[in-house]
Amino acid sequence: MAAAVVWRRGAAWLRSCRGKVLRRGGSPETPGVPRARGCAGSREVVPTCERYAVRRLPFGRLADGDVAFFERLLPGRVVTGEEEVKPFNVDWLKSVRGCSQLVLKPQTTAEVSQILRYCHERNLAVSPQGGNTGLVGGSVPVFDEIILSTALMNQIISFDKVSGILVCQAGCVLERLSEYLEEQGFIMPLDLGAKGSCHIGGNVATNAGGLRLLRYGSLRGTVLGLEVVLADGSALDCLTSLRKDNTGYDLKQLFIGSEGTLGVITAVSILCPQKPKAVNVAFLGCQSFAKVLETFTTCRAMLGEILSAYEFMDEKCMELVETHLKLSSPVAGSPFYVLIETSGSNSTHDEEKLNSFLEQAMASGLVTDGTVATDDKKIKVLWSLRERITEALTHEGYVYKYDISLPVGKLYDLVTDMRARLGQSAKNVVGYGHLGDGNLHLNITAESYSHSLLDAIEPFVYEWTARCSGSISAEHGLGFKKRQFIQYSKPREAVVLMQQFKAMLDPKGILNPYKTLPERSTC
Amino acid sequence: MAAAVVWRRGAAWLRSCRGKVLRRGGSPETPGVPRARGCAGSREVVPTCERYAVRRLPFGRLADGDVAFFERLLPGRVVTGEEEVKPFNVDWLKSVRGCSQLVLKPQTTAEVSQILRYCHERNLAVSPQGGNTGLVGGSVPVFDEIILSTALMNQIISFDKVSGILVCQAGCVLERLSEYLEEQGFIMPLDLGAKGSCHIGGNVATNAGGLRLLRYGSLRGTVLGLEVVLADGSALDCLTSLRKDNTGYDLKQLFIGSEGTLGVITAVSILCPQKPKAVNVAFLGCQSFAKVLETFTTCRAMLGEILSAYEFMDEKCMELVETHLKLSSPVAGSPFYVLIETSGSNSTHDEEKLNSFLEQAMASGLVTDGTVATDDKKIKVLWSLRERITEALTHEGYVYKYDISLPVGKLYDLVTDMRARLGQSAKNVVGYGHLGDGNLHLNITAESYSHSLLDAIEPFVYEWTARCSGSISAEHGLGFKKRQFIQYSKPREAVVLMQQFKAMLDPKGILNPYKTLPERSTC
Repeated sequence: MAAAVVWRRGAAWLRSCRGKVLRRGGSPETPGVPRARGCAGSREVVPTCERYAVRRLPFGRLADGDVAFFERLLPGRVVTGEEEVKPFNVDWLKSVRGCSQLVLKPQTTAEVSQILRYCHERNLAVSPQGGNTGLVGGSVPVFDEIILSTALMNQIISFDKVSGILVCQAGCVLERLSEYLEEQGFIMPLDLGAKGSCHIGGNVATNAGGLRLLRYGSLRGTVLGLEVVLADGSALDCLTSLRKDNTGYDLKQLFIGSEGTLGVITAVSILCPQKPKAVNVAFLGCQSFAKVLETFTTCRAMLGEILSAYEFMDEKCMELVETHLKLSSPVAGSPFYVLIETSGSNSTHDEEKLNSFLEQAMASGLVTDGTVATDDKKIKVLWSLRERITEALTHEGYVYKYDISLPVGKLYDLVTDMRARLGQSAKNVVGYGHLGDGNLHLNITAESYSHSLLDAIEPFVYEWTARCSGSISAEHGLGFKKRQFIQYSKPREAVVLMQQFKAMLDPKGILNPYKTLPERSTC
Repeated sequence: MAAAVVWRRGAAWLRSCRGKVLRRGGSPETPGVPRARGCAGSREVVPTCERYAVRRLPFGRLADGDVAFFERLLPGRVVTGEEEVKPFNVDWLKSVRGCSQLVLKPQTTAEVSQILRYCHERNLAVSPQGGNTGLVGGSVPVFDEIILSTALMNQIISFDKVSGILVCQAGCVLERLSEYLEEQGFIMPLDLGAKGSCHIGGNVATNAGGLRLLRYGSLRGTVLGLEVVLADGSALDCLTSLRKDNTGYDLKQLFIGSEGTLGVITAVSILCPQKPKAVNVAFLGCQSFAKVLETFTTCRAMLGEILSAYEFMDEKCMELVETHLKLSSPVAGSPFYVLIETSGSNSTHDEEKLNSFLEQAMASGLVTDGTVATDDKKIKVLWSLRERITEALTHEGYVYKYDISLPVGKLYDLVTDMRARLGQSAKNVVGYGHLGDGNLHLNITAESYSHSLLDAIEPFVYEWTARCSGSISAEHGLGFKKRQFIQYSKPREAVVLMQQFKAMLDPKGILNPYKTLPERSTC
């Protein structure tokens, strides 16, 4: 098979792959724009506490003496001044905004310990921040929380080529780790659009899913060890590098996905798969969502162990990517598109499997149009059509983002129902996501934020999800924006237990307040 | 390739596959003898509290009124009488023995709730028990704890063929679940020797590893949801069936591997892989452990995504299996043996990969002798050589069992060092295990239990492991026998935190006391 093969039911041609793929910044669904390009240009973001009428909790207030302490502790690594702090106060989506006056950039776990011990004593609230690529307002302060940035904790501690185990500081950028590993013949077990900015510590703190989960499983299986600093400044060293360790409770699991509310992750030990010798990507057009589903079942059976991604997007997503980012799709004219990736150890075998599947999919009419790429450059171009949807959406104005787990058969019904419900009041209602994981990204755009549109969407979207026993946050976490809706996916007893864990580990509640768990009164 | 191919460097022949593979009972490393065959015949087991001089904690004592209450609650499902209760008081290895007078067999979560609510109020201690196949004394009482058996909680609740998600009660026997799934074209993501007896709830409670971990990862990734009854009888429903759900802390993780000390698992939701279309097993002889390691590196690179197990055993293991179980190995005369399994979706591709690897391994002298099986029956025969080692060991007398995680390069050094240390005072010192996971099963046999031999082994084995940053329990858990050694694998702060979790979730300490965590005074 040639490096890039194009085929379709009728006439075939890989029309264009001009879209330049940038690899900086970006959201977890977007490969990445330099952060300066951001999303909504120069629009001023309404402070979170105003838009959402949040009540500040009775934490201490920053005094000159505090800043002086931190400047002694972290010489040259303390950021003050409204303009300098601003990029840390606003999320990537420009949808939430805190009013912190202080950013701290420790380099070591000992420094993180000292910072938290001091804040704990002084009752100062802290907002831990990695690459600030979160989509639920979890990574920026709500009020004046001190921002603890892991930006300078970016050292690789060790990598073992026999076991494939990487140990590194929390502030390592995912893409830097990927590049480092690829030179050694390995890859990271996770990949996501934000790779150019996001930190591995933030990935673990949010239990990021991303594009490789279908193949390599969740971080709960691949993260082998963590080092964490607790709210009172004590360090917890669970940074083991063992595939198996059943000595007592697995404490690290509590910190995975706790969004910085139970401790600050300072280092990570993670099991990395070997770099596949062959990667292929097929980008296909389907005439209905039912065919998208049937194509999935067929390819899962025929591609088996080499299937590494099954993503889908609707035609509106494609239109937005073409309009706003000037990307051009080699496949057109279908209401749905799927991106299938294979990764394996033998290119001949993989291509045989892929070709058999494609022949069957075409012959049975599951797929009407498609292209296949086997070389790196063309693969990246195809992936960018899927990965840059989030970025394209930000050009539309304000984006209401939902990240839902559902039984795969019902995945697109929510988009259809929402579109019908909102009618002309929304600019666009689009659906895409990780179909292989049952994960829908439902996005609704409007020229600007509006309370009434939000009321039309919520709690409808959560009620719909709860009726299907779905999750209202598949991979983005709850952060600030979704925390009051946890009860749609978790029973009351579970929320109460979570609050008990929080109270035990962070009795003063200084770690990332207003995030993840609802206020006690609401549950 | 024919159904079974035999080859070796010199003359080749699959000598014999007579060993009848039974599938009942057995330990996590043993496929299975009927429980009655057990291990140490009619030898009377010394009560745990005598052998180890344990102090009984001040729990309530069982009164007639308590038994009457349970008989009303569970008519016909209450076991009393010394002889009737005895099999539940003694572990499979016949190494520990409790003196419970009562076994309860609930069928529903509501019944488990009522039992625990009552016991909590009355301050009666409870020892949850699944298939009682544990190897660290975690599944039987130490004193008179009430035994809560999941034996009658054996219903499959649902199975979704699209997603591969199975939901079932905790008392389902692993092998029954495997058989059920295979009919639907799926398999369980875990497999272990004790499959004929062990319960899925017990597997999850001990975070069982087993033979498929290399391919399908740990239960921390594949278990999607749990239903748990807490010490006070309240039920916690986290029985979701979603691949991705980031709504709050992942509470279920705390119960996975907590060995029944934090709650009683009543139901499990688990992601099951599709049944591979092709399975091959190679059984090979290597002339040194260095060659075992090099063979692993080579096969991982050449078999890639189809490698599903890489097990090893030393020649002494083979000798014991042949002597005690009359199994006959098709490969002989090597100091080490490896069992390699491949599982894939295309038999032609898989056999091509396996053959290339075998040719390379033979040509480069990594392997001197071997056989390959592709049909089910012969595959089982080869697997039995590895799986039945534990059973063979029990015929030797008393077995000191160690389940260690180590950097793979050092795995066998511990066996060699121990053999040199013990000299003639041990009957046998053998090593085998899941090399692909860095997991060594070190076993030392003697005619009978002896304090002095134990003193020669411990803490030496734990200190040796700690020096290599290994784990003193890779997959068996800590149970009763290893709990005082947790500090060799976990820092003090972690143990203190575990004790806080225990105190929060089970303030009276009634759930599986004397297990997993050390007494507070020791840390």
